[in-house]
Order: sequence, then structure tokens, then C-alpha cells
Amino acid sequence: MLGLIIIALLGLQQAGVVAHGERSRRRLISSSEDEPCMRMNVYYHDILYNGENNGNATSAAATQPTALSRSVSINDTFFGQVIVFDDVVTAGQALASEPVARAQGFYFYDNKERLNAWFAFSLVFNSTAHKGTLNVMGADLIFNKTKDFSIVGGTGDFFMSRGIATVRTDSYEGLYYFRLHMDIKLYECYV
Amino acid sequence: MLGLIIIALLGLQQAGVVAHGERSRRRLISSSEDEPCMRMNVYYHDILYNGENNGNATSAAATQPTALSRSVSINDTFFGQVIVFDDVVTAGQALASEPVARAQGFYFYDNKERLNAWFAFSLVFNSTAHKGTLNVMGADLIFNKTKDFSIVGGTGDFFMSRGIATVRTDSYEGLYYFRLHMDIKLYECYV
Amino acid sequence: MLGLIIIALLGLQQAGVVAHGERSRRRLISSSEDEPCMRMNVYYHDILYNGENNGNATSAAATQPTALSRSVSINDTFFGQVIVFDDVVTAGQALASEPVARAQGFYFYDNKERLNAWFAFSLVFNSTAHKGTLNVMGADLIFNKTKDFSIVGGTGDFFMSRGIATVRTDSYEGLYYFRLHMDIKLYECYV
Repeated sequence: MLGLIIIALLGLQQAGVVAHGERSRRRLISSSEDEPCMRMNVYYHDILYNGENNGNATSAAATQPTALSRSVSINDTFFGQVIVFDDVVTAGQALASEPVARAQGFYFYDNKERLNAWFAFSLVFNSTAHKGTLNVMGADLIFNKTKDFSIVGGTGDFFMSRGIATVRTDSYEGLYYFRLHMDIKLYECYV
Repeated sequence: MLGLIIIALLGLQQAGVVAHGERSRRRLISSSEDEPCMRMNVYYHDILYNGENNGNATSAAATQPTALSRSVSINDTFFGQVIVFDDVVTAGQALASEPVARAQGFYFYDNKERLNAWFAFSLVFNSTAHKGTLNVMGADLIFNKTKDFSIVGGTGDFFMSRGIATVRTDSYEGLYYFRLHMDIKLYECYV
Repeated sequence: MLGLIIIALLGLQQAGVVAHGERSRRRLISSSEDEPCMRMNVYYHDILYNGENNGNATSAAATQPTALSRSVSINDTFFGQVIVFDDVVTAGQALASEPVARAQGFYFYDNKERLNAWFAFSLVFNSTAHKGTLNVMGADLIFNKTKDFSIVGGTGDFFMSRGIATVRTDSYEGLYYFRLHMDIKLYECYV
């Protein structure tokens, strides 16, 4: 049970901790925003249930918008509406391109004057390339061109990872489809 | 039940521990999945309100399942239903065994074709053994035998901790009771 | 309002800082609860929509309390009620004092016998002093004088930060206004 972690001076300077043991990993930490220890560019597709698309829909509203959302804005801002999703995440822009993960979680609209949202979800990887999850949360400041979510933990191949997902709305069709580009950058990796 | 790994003092110093002040701690980091710096095995009991069990119930549905959940599957998959809980966590399997914490948070079902869920909650410890909280989130891939949640932070005795909770459904009785075994493994500890 | 502790360079080198690239940073880690690497004291104001205050309200109930919440307690404990917010965060106690951030997220009540809540949100900074977000989650044990939330990640000026927010209810007026004092302490900083 006693684990001895030996930190080699060279390894320490370059990376951090070096561990031994059967499932030991090397801990990599980057302090440079431009040099993550792992990076992936993926696309997240949200297809909201509209009452008719039950074959294609991967998300659905769990609550109605609040009365506040309609009382302030001529255009409903959906303040307080909670949407639950099990969305496909692909390698390319096209919905039909190679799937790399599912995004399972929820978002809700949280501004009474304009669209703005908040997300929490798991990226669930189950392919030959990656098995495991990344857990993500953050504010989707919709009127910012890009925004950053925090990657607060990981499991499986992403054991104990942390990082940032830089998100950009890549496309949308009314309320019922939008695509986010996610630039996933891990700054704490165990490899 | 509880394993504690002490890393050699030399390694600690090299790992960058700066400990001064009255409430200073030693920072322990393990890079080996098999050697967490702290471990606990506990059981989580979810007793869902069914309209009659108000004395025993510790969770309740905050929303109805979405129309999507019933439109695809013959068996309702409860897609979009949000459940809020204040569940007891025990040392042993039995609901009546020694309570060690409360789990306060929520889960929701997020798959339209079968049961699948997503959790976020705090483990709230308030005993002679432990005082403080562990904050947890992750995908409950119900049809996987075990799944990992991320422990993304801690407070009190678990100051700044991180780790992984490996979860297994240990028992269930229809929708209104289930018990999860949680193997809680911290890989970043401050002791 | 804002204390910054710079750990000695020797400590930094021992902590394994590798700084190269244009946007490199120094990683600071504190193991002493009393000596965070960054500290801010702020006030969070929650103004709940009551059906009439649509000009002032910054939060609204997304769900009704569950039947369980009224079945046990004479005073409704609002068990299961979810509130979504986009609340102002100020430097001083007064709602009209200098705004320093928005808190965007949600809370819900999670105890059937008394008021108790759980929070997850982003602090969104967009001022000359700070740009970026801090992502927060934790149990609001309302009957404890103070309680700690975990700061599980950060972006922008708070790149990859972690820490603890010690929260105290500073004032409340029935259900429709409450003010929290938040003592934000980061123990992992990248500066």
C-alpha cells in the first residue's frame, strides 16, 4: 500500500512527477497556455427535440422557460429553461463524420435580456483511440466569439486530467440545431 | 477501509510543498491508479419519493420526464427527468449501518433509448472521523458494470483534494430504491 | 481586497514550473489554508423573481418545489426547487457598490425538513481588473455559519486556478433577496 514517488530532477523540471507501480503514469503539467500536454479539436452537435424529430433528437427541454424570460424581452430569452442532452461529438464538422465521443449533460439559459447559457457535462469516449471521460463545466457567453469552459477532471485514459475547452458556435439553425467547435486543451495529464 | 500513503519527505520537498503558517499541510500526489493517497469504500442509498413514503424518502423528482423519453422507447427511459437528493451514505451495505456522510446533489436521466444518468453532488462529512466535503461529478453509464466519477474538489478535512470515485450499482428495487457502492480514491491530498 | 502571495523562486523551481512560450505563466501552489496565492472578498446578491420585479430580478425558479417538500414540513422547505441565476457580484455590501463580476449558474433546495441548498456557477469577470471565469460548486449548508464551496477551475486571468470559496449568508429578506459574502481563496494560481 505504501507508494513511493521518486521525482527525478530532470523529470521534475520538464514535467513534474514520475511514478512507479503497475498502473503508474507520468504526471505532466504545462504552465503555458499555448503548449497543452494534450489537444483535441472536436465538434459538438445539439439536436433539440421539437415534438416531431424523435428519431434524430439528442436533447430535450426538461423545463419550460420561466415567466421572467418572457416578461422582459420581446424575444423570449428562455431564462431558466433546462435542456438535457446526450449529444454526438465528431472529429469533423459534419454530423455524419467520425464520432469520437458522446457529450452527456445539461445546459440552461440564464440571462433575461438575451440568450446566454451555462453547461455541465461529461465527454464520454469509447473508441479504440480513447476510453474514459472528461468532465466539463462553464459559462457559455453566447455573444462572445469564443469562451472557455473548465475541464475539471478526467477518468480512464484521461485519469485525473484538467484543462480548458475553448468553445465557438460553429453553426446554428434556429433553436433546434447548433454545433459547437471545441478546442480541448489539457494542461495536467497523466500519461 | 482507509489507506493512507505517505510520500517520502524528500519527494515532498521536491514536489514543491511550501508549508508554513498554522494550518499548513503536506501535499501528496500519487500518479499510480492503484495507490491513492486516501481511500474509502462507502454505500450511497437513494430512496425516491413515490407519493407515500415521505418519512423515508431522501430524493424526489424535480421535473417530469420529457415527451422525448416516451416517444422512442416502450419502457420510459425518463430522459430529462431531474432528481434532487439528500441521500445517506453508509459504511456498510445496510441502510441501517453506520452513516458516514450525506450525499447532497442531483442526477438526471439522459438517454432516450435506455436508462443512463448524470450526477453532480457533494459528499458532506460531519462525524468524529471526518468533517468537510468532497465535490463530485460524472456520467453514470448505467450499463457499464463500473464507472468513474471525478472528485473535483474538497473542503475541510478534504482541503483541495481531487480523485476518482469508482461506482457500481450494488442493488436496486424498481425505480424507488437503489444502492451504489462508491470506491473513493483521492490522488491529490493535503494532510 | 486582493492579496497575492509570491512563493520564493526556489520553491517555484521545486514545484516543477516549466515556463516557455509567449503565454507562459508561473505556477504557484500553497499548502497552507491561511496563505492562498490569491484572495478576493466579494458579495453575491440574489434577487428572485416574484412575479412583479422583472426589472430587478436576476434569478427565477425553473421548477416548482416537489410534493415531498410540503408533505414533511409545515414550512415548505422547497425540496427540489431549482433556481437559475445571473446575479451581480459586488466589491462592497451594497447592491449599488462597484460590480466586480456576474455569478451565472443555479442552486436548488435539497432538504425535506429545513432549508438547505446546493450551488454550481461561474463567476464571470469582465473588468479592467480581471477578465475570465472561476467555476464553483458545493453544498450550501444553510444552518452552518460558514461553508466552503470548491473552486474547481478557472479561465482567462484565472487560467487553471483552483481554490475554496468560504461563504456566509450576510443578509436576507424573506425568500426574495439574499446576499452571500464570499471569501475567495485560490491555492493553485498561474500568474
